[in-house]
Amino acid sequence: MIKVAFQGELGAYSELATCEFFGSDVTVVPKETFVEVYEAVSSGEADHGMLPFENSLTGSIHENYDLMLDHDLFITGEIKLRIVHNLIVNKGVKLPEIKRVYSHPQALQQCKKFLSGLDNVELVSVYDTAGAARDIKKSGSTEEAAIASAQAAADYGLDIIQSGIESNHMNFTRFHVLSRELNDEVPDSKTSIVFSTKNIPGGLFKSLSVFALRDIDLYKIESRPLHGTPWKYIFYLDFGGDIRQEVTKKAIAHLEEIAAFLKFLGSYPKGKDATGHIQERNAQ
Amino acid sequence: MIKVAFQGELGAYSELATCEFFGSDVTVVPKETFVEVYEAVSSGEADHGMLPFENSLTGSIHENYDLMLDHDLFITGEIKLRIVHNLIVNKGVKLPEIKRVYSHPQALQQCKKFLSGLDNVELVSVYDTAGAARDIKKSGSTEEAAIASAQAAADYGLDIIQSGIESNHMNFTRFHVLSRELNDEVPDSKTSIVFSTKNIPGGLFKSLSVFALRDIDLYKIESRPLHGTPWKYIFYLDFGGDIRQEVTKKAIAHLEEIAAFLKFLGSYPKGKDATGHIQERNAQ
Repeated sequence: MIKVAFQGELGAYSELATCEFFGSDVTVVPKETFVEVYEAVSSGEADHGMLPFENSLTGSIHENYDLMLDHDLFITGEIKLRIVHNLIVNKGVKLPEIKRVYSHPQALQQCKKFLSGLDNVELVSVYDTAGAARDIKKSGSTEEAAIASAQAAADYGLDIIQSGIESNHMNFTRFHVLSRELNDEVPDSKTSIVFSTKNIPGGLFKSLSVFALRDIDLYKIESRPLHGTPWKYIFYLDFGGDIRQEVTKKAIAHLEEIAAFLKFLGSYPKGKDATGHIQERNAQ
Repeated sequence: MIKVAFQGELGAYSELATCEFFGSDVTVVPKETFVEVYEAVSSGEADHGMLPFENSLTGSIHENYDLMLDHDLFITGEIKLRIVHNLIVNKGVKLPEIKRVYSHPQALQQCKKFLSGLDNVELVSVYDTAGAARDIKKSGSTEEAAIASAQAAADYGLDIIQSGIESNHMNFTRFHVLSRELNDEVPDSKTSIVFSTKNIPGGLFKSLSVFALRDIDLYKIESRPLHGTPWKYIFYLDFGGDIRQEVTKKAIAHLEEIAAFLKFLGSYPKGKDATGHIQERNAQ
């Protein structure tokens, strides 16, 4: 059975994405941190990793972009999961009893409007949404709530007080599948690279010209600080095409003439939107 | 006396930036959230706001970018402050006693290497570094520590256990001064805009061409999600020049032909690096 590592506890959104992408016949390998997922795939402990790279409201998950630089893994797939956040409590707990809400900082941020309507409630950031659900189950406290998936509520036997508490329902998270080797070429692919420009006038404009001159679509550009050199940036770019196509190869070769640094991150089929309805799955 | 609003308690890094930029003859107006700073300047309660927009390690502070869209304020100044984080405790507390560390999520992130060396310590995100210092003073707890500035430790009469605990000492935060009106034109200015591209092939490339064709330097490009339209982006751009110069006006007029949306955010003198050594200041 395929082994897939993700960050978080059972019931995490990353596990929902894993089951949507690979189906139910998969052994899941939960890890505490993003970097441990990279290490599990690099070492062969897992066949693939499933990691969030971008949310349609809060933007990129920069840590995972930064980690791509330090590991020799390829992006081999993509899935876009609709995120539905739920306020989850121990059995019988009512809204006015809640004094503290635990979740991942991005989930707290995405439910800001709902949370700002609660009086005297402290928000506590933890490393994982599903872990927050597990922790309130463990404590048994009637003053604590977690924000997590419906699956997490079901897994830990908790009540959902309110569902769909995210401020904006157009709330999707885009996950990447990471692997040690590329898959075979498919039509309608995307390619991801990271590069920095030489310190020349119009460096970024010249870099983008290698795609514009070949009518290659750009899907996303993300700038990240270059550590140790304040106010200099590296750029993560997603564009249409596969590394095994001539036009893609030529665009990358052309960019190498202009860039100070370039790393190929992967070519993979464009992801479809998914509902995040979890399937029956064999336990780990 | 000039009134300047910032987010956080007395002793916050934003207060240090305020005193570096405006000198000591300033009345500071601390606010709990970024949006309250925008509102204080918009309403006239404060003359200016001082807000962090970017850190040289963790990247942009996206909330402040997003808030520029909703308020009609101008960027009128910039300052780059060297950030030195300190582990702060109640008098006499020793390192092994600490069970919880409170700070702003970005400060916790920036001290990750140091914090990962502490055993069984829970990290708690709060809205402000200096507020974390004030809170541990208030609780008097010997199990709690805060990460904040040396100024915050001095303000609240707390001990610094260890100074300079940030993982990377090339740690600068870039602040913007926000005002209701532009200052006079000065030489060597920067201009900031936000725009979105029409849904045309090479939209971003064509947008950047209006600067490249005029030899205008680009300093920073930041993409942010367009809410309600997953996987579409708006771009924040900083470039050389002043809105009152002919070449800048022409570049912006040219970009308006290509862009679906464009908003001018301000022209202001380029910021210098500052040490964050706080000066004697008149109280509020």
